[in-house]
Amino acid sequence: MTKRILSGMRPTGKLHIGHFVGALENWVKLQEEYNNFHLIADYHVLTTNTDTSEIYKNTIEMVKDWVSAGIDPNKSPIFRQSQIKEHAELHLLFSMLITTARLERNPSLKEQVRDLKLDNITYGHFGYPVLQSADILLYQGELVPVGEDQASHVEITREIARKFNKIYGKTFVEPRAKLTTFSRLPGLDGKAKMSKSLGNTISLSDSPEEIWQSVRKAVTDTKKIRKNDPGHPEVCTIFTYQKVFNQNNTEEIEKNCKSGALGCVDCKKMCAEKISTYFEDFRNKRSELNKNPELIKDILNDGENKARIVAKETMEKVRDAMKIG
Amino acid sequence: MTKRILSGMRPTGKLHIGHFVGALENWVKLQEEYNNFHLIADYHVLTTNTDTSEIYKNTIEMVKDWVSAGIDPNKSPIFRQSQIKEHAELHLLFSMLITTARLERNPSLKEQVRDLKLDNITYGHFGYPVLQSADILLYQGELVPVGEDQASHVEITREIARKFNKIYGKTFVEPRAKLTTFSRLPGLDGKAKMSKSLGNTISLSDSPEEIWQSVRKAVTDTKKIRKNDPGHPEVCTIFTYQKVFNQNNTEEIEKNCKSGALGCVDCKKMCAEKISTYFEDFRNKRSELNKNPELIKDILNDGENKARIVAKETMEKVRDAMKIG
Repeated sequence: MTKRILSGMRPTGKLHIGHFVGALENWVKLQEEYNNFHLIADYHVLTTNTDTSEIYKNTIEMVKDWVSAGIDPNKSPIFRQSQIKEHAELHLLFSMLITTARLERNPSLKEQVRDLKLDNITYGHFGYPVLQSADILLYQGELVPVGEDQASHVEITREIARKFNKIYGKTFVEPRAKLTTFSRLPGLDGKAKMSKSLGNTISLSDSPEEIWQSVRKAVTDTKKIRKNDPGHPEVCTIFTYQKVFNQNNTEEIEKNCKSGALGCVDCKKMCAEKISTYFEDFRNKRSELNKNPELIKDILNDGENKARIVAKETMEKVRDAMKIG
Repeated sequence: MTKRILSGMRPTGKLHIGHFVGALENWVKLQEEYNNFHLIADYHVLTTNTDTSEIYKNTIEMVKDWVSAGIDPNKSPIFRQSQIKEHAELHLLFSMLITTARLERNPSLKEQVRDLKLDNITYGHFGYPVLQSADILLYQGELVPVGEDQASHVEITREIARKFNKIYGKTFVEPRAKLTTFSRLPGLDGKAKMSKSLGNTISLSDSPEEIWQSVRKAVTDTKKIRKNDPGHPEVCTIFTYQKVFNQNNTEEIEKNCKSGALGCVDCKKMCAEKISTYFEDFRNKRSELNKNPELIKDILNDGENKARIVAKETMEKVRDAMKIG
């Protein structure tokens, strides 16, 4: 049987090119070889924000992005966590199999508390790796594509699977993290991470003009002030983008930047054009989808029906094993 | 509309006379006046014990006890938490509305950690008041009959209801604790609490002979050694039982114990007889139920169907309010 993969994202609205390079592009490739399940983690949004007014709108925008990027909903079901009750059920059962001490050792939680400047976290936020474990194991995912920073969550999932199997008999396969090859894109402001909350992104659906306006203002090598000054591509955000979206010309760009032959404005123009071209198919597909709002609803409906079948099967196995039939 | 009451117990097997005096008797009375929902809190068992092998058997025994004590399943649905998925769903949503700091202040948790000598608690144990809040609010319970020691849980439920209403609009009524009039019965060994784990109980279904054997060995006033010694009924376990099950004769018993006219053996005989008589109807009803094992299954099935209707209605309201339709 083809191996099953579970991948998911929180619906925070339109995706940016960092999402594409870091995850989405990878998902599209994986669906050729694996049986992929694509989770819209709408309940996870609540761990850091109880305002739900934008979740549905953000979900629709994200699904448009996924499909435009090449996720084939016929091959890889797309579904919302909130529409499959079994996530909550398995989450509750798993909550009995992990100690609070173990959750306190979760390095990502510490990071989040620091980054979001939280005085106080909610019970659900504290336990989000338990919900993630339920998300993954509900679909018997054997592989989970994650960045290196998320490998610790998969470790918690493996521990919970092992604990469950030990107490109630072999029910789950311990999933493995599949590390994504590309790392994150830096933001337009030069910060290490492109992130909507930092306002330093290029959206996947941005028009060529919008892309140019964003790239134009991007932070480059701060020591290259005049056009002919020699540059340092290794510290330049734009050069990182060139390496991803303009692979054939990176050697030349590097040489000409260092020598001072290539000025930042010309380099940025080239970069913006390449990004534009890279996402041209994406934009065309997305504008087609915009004309047909019912299609996204159908995709969700269909994906949720498919996901529910698998989720119900797993919960039946779980209930049999636990004798809570 | 008649006010709704939610009451529940963990299925730990056959109930004892302490359960009857402290809760069950009260529930039977309340069903005349209120619309009662009787929850079998089988998921709560997992907070302190992941072994599920006895849960179903214990559930059946407990339901026999409930019905034999006078709970009318046609009037007051009896249902298992594990069979209504909405408990898990609402629990997950509520987990986002309470901080870990608030849960740490739960006085009952501290007590449990001490009593059960726990080094380490699970995430689910830490958050059991969140699950209780979901149990109560799922049925829009306005009153919750509890002992004084549990009033703090109802307070957490009120806080969660208030928080939900504030963020998503008025959805829940804040339930009130209805303190039970009788306090706990002491155990046969003189300990303050009758409890199966302490081995100091009289089961509701015990035969007259079993009751006598238990009462015979009960701890009384340790200073009354010989029959004619003057006794101190105020410190005597048996006298506490007499006050509950032999109300008409307590004055006389008190006088004769103090004067030394009444010896412990005679007093115990009288007590055992009164307890036997008190539960005679109960035993008859229970032996009828034992002849018909399908009946208990039907009662659960029927109660779960009724409970599910209310639970689904509440979750629809919740989903509408949160816009996660």
